[in-house]
Amino acid sequence: MDFVLKGNLCYSESPERLTTLPGGYVVSVNGISEGVFETLPERYAGLPLTDVGDRLVLPGLCDLHVHAPQFAYRGLGMDLELIEWLETRAFPEESKYATLDYASRAYELFADAVKKSATTRLSCFATLHVPATLLLMQKLESAGLRGFVGKVNMNRNSPDNLCETDAETAGADTEAWVKEARRQFMRIQPIITPRFIPSCTDALMDRLSGIASEYDVPLQSHLSENQSEIKWVSELCPSTNGYADAYERFGMLGDKTIMAHVVYPEPKEIQLLGERGVTVAHCPASNMNIRSGIAPVRKLLNAGVKVGLGTDVAGGQTIDMFRAITDAVQVSKLYWRICDQQDQALTLSEAFYLATKGSGAFFGKVGSFECGYELDAIVLDDTDLPHPQELSVAERLERAIYLSGDCRITNKFVAGEPILP
Amino acid sequence: MDFVLKGNLCYSESPERLTTLPGGYVVSVNGISEGVFETLPERYAGLPLTDVGDRLVLPGLCDLHVHAPQFAYRGLGMDLELIEWLETRAFPEESKYATLDYASRAYELFADAVKKSATTRLSCFATLHVPATLLLMQKLESAGLRGFVGKVNMNRNSPDNLCETDAETAGADTEAWVKEARRQFMRIQPIITPRFIPSCTDALMDRLSGIASEYDVPLQSHLSENQSEIKWVSELCPSTNGYADAYERFGMLGDKTIMAHVVYPEPKEIQLLGERGVTVAHCPASNMNIRSGIAPVRKLLNAGVKVGLGTDVAGGQTIDMFRAITDAVQVSKLYWRICDQQDQALTLSEAFYLATKGSGAFFGKVGSFECGYELDAIVLDDTDLPHPQELSVAERLERAIYLSGDCRITNKFVAGEPILP
Repeated sequence: MDFVLKGNLCYSESPERLTTLPGGYVVSVNGISEGVFETLPERYAGLPLTDVGDRLVLPGLCDLHVHAPQFAYRGLGMDLELIEWLETRAFPEESKYATLDYASRAYELFADAVKKSATTRLSCFATLHVPATLLLMQKLESAGLRGFVGKVNMNRNSPDNLCETDAETAGADTEAWVKEARRQFMRIQPIITPRFIPSCTDALMDRLSGIASEYDVPLQSHLSENQSEIKWVSELCPSTNGYADAYERFGMLGDKTIMAHVVYPEPKEIQLLGERGVTVAHCPASNMNIRSGIAPVRKLLNAGVKVGLGTDVAGGQTIDMFRAITDAVQVSKLYWRICDQQDQALTLSEAFYLATKGSGAFFGKVGSFECGYELDAIVLDDTDLPHPQELSVAERLERAIYLSGDCRITNKFVAGEPILP
Repeated sequence: MDFVLKGNLCYSESPERLTTLPGGYVVSVNGISEGVFETLPERYAGLPLTDVGDRLVLPGLCDLHVHAPQFAYRGLGMDLELIEWLETRAFPEESKYATLDYASRAYELFADAVKKSATTRLSCFATLHVPATLLLMQKLESAGLRGFVGKVNMNRNSPDNLCETDAETAGADTEAWVKEARRQFMRIQPIITPRFIPSCTDALMDRLSGIASEYDVPLQSHLSENQSEIKWVSELCPSTNGYADAYERFGMLGDKTIMAHVVYPEPKEIQLLGERGVTVAHCPASNMNIRSGIAPVRKLLNAGVKVGLGTDVAGGQTIDMFRAITDAVQVSKLYWRICDQQDQALTLSEAFYLATKGSGAFFGKVGSFECGYELDAIVLDDTDLPHPQELSVAERLERAIYLSGDCRITNKFVAGEPILP
């Protein structure tokens, strides 16, 4: 259904340029933006108009890294560090998804929460369980969301009840899952998901890389999250030239790859990620919570690496992508202050760009209202943030992002389809 | 009115010990806790009982540092650093409080927001305007809140429309305000508030110290927030032995003093703050937003310095003290990771303690349900955080703190008086 949306439009044209158009029009035809207009061109006068009055209208936010099964224990066990947290929180909880009944209850909560959130697109990890992963895809698809879901692969250094056996069986399961997912779903697509280097044998990595290539499926994993993890990888893969190279040698770094975190990249790794066109999912909350550190986002951007934002629930405690935006700004200020005063902090405009066009690029032409972009939009009611002074639309947007918990999302469109209210 | 409150009690006995008592009773007599009980003693059987069922019951949180006039522009101008932010945001906005009509509208929003928040006690800065400051005190008093409000003093390095003139006039105004405030208000008390060293002449500081001493009024100010500010202070006060000493020589460091921030204390300053019994208001969000850095809270605690938490709106973007708790934990993890691995990160239990008993100590016996403590309590409904698994009360508390925006405060008591619903 084609339509016109009228309201206070806010979107990025570039990292430096946050455009606001009070009372502007954005036109959706076949789910694609025809562009924004101060006055509605005559040729669109016949389309149905949704006028949201004084509310803010933003592109949907894109969450590049989130663990769906961890949503059930977000905000718990936050005093632990990565490896300890995986062993005492993540793995025991993820093993419950062998049971479809538990998976159904938990994934229903996740899909419902994402539907109500500012997120329109996501790339998420499920667990290694194929039936539960298909169930998650079905629930996200039904919610009207778009993006990728990965059946996780892990066949070493994992607890017995959460460990695939030989690479051949794991590969065959994964290949069958890719085919079945493509058969069943339109909006939600499969993504190959080796958990991280320590949890996959070389044979499995080879097999997964082959599937990604044969079926032209994107790939996601974790890279350089935490110092102990990096040390572990160097012990497991003594012949590689750093953590990124441990993926590179399996042909896993390319322009359809998301690598989450990248907190401690070597200069040569930054160069490699840039050359391969890998998208980095920056997850500032998680990097604080499980004591990983602060990713050098400015260095990545300066080197031309593609960067988007992720909530990394449940390393991050919330799926609120507005929080990811302000967390990204805040930790970049600390990085500038403490780590390297050559690296200017991110501005709000830049972080907003990362959460919209930056993350969105992984999903196609997504994350803006410019002509030709898929029409993902959220409408924000900020009337619970009363103010005694006059505020511009840009100021109201800044406030709404910093105080997102006090705003309400009243409408949401994904690729031109209304999914809220 | 004496009463019994029954629910899932959560409170700190020490920084290391967070006590939970599912379905426990806390008894309020004359506004003071008689202690907590697993079963209600016969002697209290006649008191009215408020049973909040499965909800969480916590001590009220105490905000040690918040700028009431800055609430109106919280979440705005966050791309700026301290001095630039003061000049382009804080000062122009604060000058509006010369007009009682503006002050009334803005302070009404502030008092209402604090009333609905988890905060039961606060120590806040107003502006230099006496009528507006009295109005703020009246609104907070009417809301049932308790704590301190300071008429700000500033008579140098300030914009013309926000600058007191000679020290004698400023002192006389302040003294008259202290007397008038004490005449009018019971729950909200005056606190002497030199803005910070750069904005007060020596003569004014002398006079303010004299008033604090003569009327036995507490005192609050800012200390070592930002590196440029510290450099400025050293230029303004070449004869002092560091920033803390610039207050010490006016007799302003004592056990009725709050110093906000303390991001860059020298070892000798930490020792001095400990010896004088000064309470440090740690404001992690503000320290990120205006790029100050991370306060070395573990070093302060190890040296026996009293520490509480502040939101520092509008350096901080929100008055939500739960956010201050999680921010304190998160930045302490970064401090441990990046700055000094001798300084263990704060646990959630420790940060919760800082926001309750730590901050509360400045207001008397406040911040716990233990026998003899003033009965400040908030009741949290966390049913909007559904979970597929069994959770203990302690786990629900952790989740509610990390995801406070998704919880509702249904009841609130300050010194035994119900102020919500």
